[in-house]
Amino acid sequence: MSIAQPYLLFLGDVTDPIAAKTARGIALWRPASCVGQLRLTPETVSLDLPDLTLEQAKESGAKTLVIGTANAGGVIPANWQETLIKAAQMGFEIASGMHSRLNEIEALAQLESEGITQLHDVRHFDDTLKVGNGVKRQGKRILTVGTDCSVGKMFTALALEKALKNKQVDAQFKATGQTGILIDGKGISIDAVVADFISGAVEAISPDFDDHDWDIIEGQGSLFNPSFAGVSLGLLHGAQADALVLCHEVGRPHIRHLPHFELPSIQATIDANIAAARLTNPKANLAGISLNTSALSEQEAQTLCADWQEQFGVPVTDPVRFGIDAIAQQIVTHF
Amino acid sequence: MSIAQPYLLFLGDVTDPIAAKTARGIALWRPASCVGQLRLTPETVSLDLPDLTLEQAKESGAKTLVIGTANAGGVIPANWQETLIKAAQMGFEIASGMHSRLNEIEALAQLESEGITQLHDVRHFDDTLKVGNGVKRQGKRILTVGTDCSVGKMFTALALEKALKNKQVDAQFKATGQTGILIDGKGISIDAVVADFISGAVEAISPDFDDHDWDIIEGQGSLFNPSFAGVSLGLLHGAQADALVLCHEVGRPHIRHLPHFELPSIQATIDANIAAARLTNPKANLAGISLNTSALSEQEAQTLCADWQEQFGVPVTDPVRFGIDAIAQQIVTHF
Repeated sequence: MSIAQPYLLFLGDVTDPIAAKTARGIALWRPASCVGQLRLTPETVSLDLPDLTLEQAKESGAKTLVIGTANAGGVIPANWQETLIKAAQMGFEIASGMHSRLNEIEALAQLESEGITQLHDVRHFDDTLKVGNGVKRQGKRILTVGTDCSVGKMFTALALEKALKNKQVDAQFKATGQTGILIDGKGISIDAVVADFISGAVEAISPDFDDHDWDIIEGQGSLFNPSFAGVSLGLLHGAQADALVLCHEVGRPHIRHLPHFELPSIQATIDANIAAARLTNPKANLAGISLNTSALSEQEAQTLCADWQEQFGVPVTDPVRFGIDAIAQQIVTHF
Repeated sequence: MSIAQPYLLFLGDVTDPIAAKTARGIALWRPASCVGQLRLTPETVSLDLPDLTLEQAKESGAKTLVIGTANAGGVIPANWQETLIKAAQMGFEIASGMHSRLNEIEALAQLESEGITQLHDVRHFDDTLKVGNGVKRQGKRILTVGTDCSVGKMFTALALEKALKNKQVDAQFKATGQTGILIDGKGISIDAVVADFISGAVEAISPDFDDHDWDIIEGQGSLFNPSFAGVSLGLLHGAQADALVLCHEVGRPHIRHLPHFELPSIQATIDANIAAARLTNPKANLAGISLNTSALSEQEAQTLCADWQEQFGVPVTDPVRFGIDAIAQQIVTHF
């Protein structure tokens, strides 16, 4: 999956800021890839990017119209279609993280078959993959892992990429989920591949390399999430990570959407992930713990980070509150 | 996936007995479901079933023509198509474990769209699934797990089903792979589902029940196989097994197809599988070890089983050489 950048971010007529999370992520992490935003109404959420028409965006060099919003059911609303079709006619690529596929809109499918546009449904994966083989690859890799889904694995990976680049370390984010793919313009939605190919897909995302310093692979799910742990294990094996960064949301009461499942302890999560990672990289080790401490006061968060740093022997931080430089430094020094 | 039984087993013009492994498995484990075989040439492998024409099979009540052979590339040879199309025209369902899909043969797709036949590609899965939720289900479950792929997990599950039935215990085999599905006429090829749905697929295969004693779920892969471990972990979580039966091939030099990966130790395999299984069933425990000892003499095999029985504290047997009654008895007594 490779999406041409820069982007025009399409916000439709979405008024709920949370529904525009993906677009905000793109603007936050890849500002240079966003020439502007396209909103259908004045009430639509704004990302403080220039409001551009399709024509203006074209002139500014935008190559892809990205649907950067979610809505209930994951279906593309009928009143967005006119804009999407016009964009496709003008030669924009269209990228979407919706459940429903862009080529279900007949006019778009037709324009793609004529070679006028290219459609990217990042939530789906239709290409051919190889089965993973675990053969040792060149290059060093970081993988973010977690106690659960949605605990900051993508955010941490992107923050680490930035922190390492600030240190003149050439690190490249590798996306494994739909938002990450839209942000970076490439990657594979690992949970959308056929089960036999989970580790093979990760091997394909992060192949042998010697032209930069680190690949930072975005983790998915958790070994302790009974819905998705298979994805997480295949990801661990495919990643061959040298450095694991554990992500956790402080105060989360139970596994997401599953009130009958407790969160694992930090130590159990570390142990299970390192044991699994060592199957394909015996040198795998923990490089740090990245917390979402929004449930705590700043003072409480500082105390917790300090306590856990002592307990687990690695840097512990909340990247939003305290930055992630401590973990980046640990990676530079110890890996 | 639900395939109408009984079957007419189609052997094509295959002369290599190994290529007819699936057909032999069906005839071995479900003899009552096989009315006969259809061979295209006198040299074709025989399963010692009655040779029937399509017409004779129809009269004998056969409902599905099953392609019970493999061939290089997984493609259905052109010279088999006439027979398949004629069978479909006569109203037989057609089932295949090949990589290429039956509906790629235009005449078959047409007959299916007209409602005259039904095509079952057991290696593929196109239906909708729910994400697994790990909610405790009614009924008791056995899962076969392994040190690697192809170490007897399906064989052991089917042998256990038979042994338990012989003890008047009502056990039902639950298929998770293509051969198992063809044998039992139902199931889901777990490695063919989208990665997000691995555990959900197993939950669907073995839902709540109180009308029989045990579900015996066929395991896949191994937690230590870097190509497929994600499938194995999702299967463990979805199965909620009370009893695990560990399968192993004595003397296997390395992970199948991956000479750079050693086999895990028996103890490591037990520990990792029990730990993972307990996420969704805290009572999960090892019920026995099922070995393929064909690399050993009968005397050596007996000694090894006795030694390991002492070492691991559960019955250890080679089901082909010594039967599997010891493990069935352990399940009846201790679970």
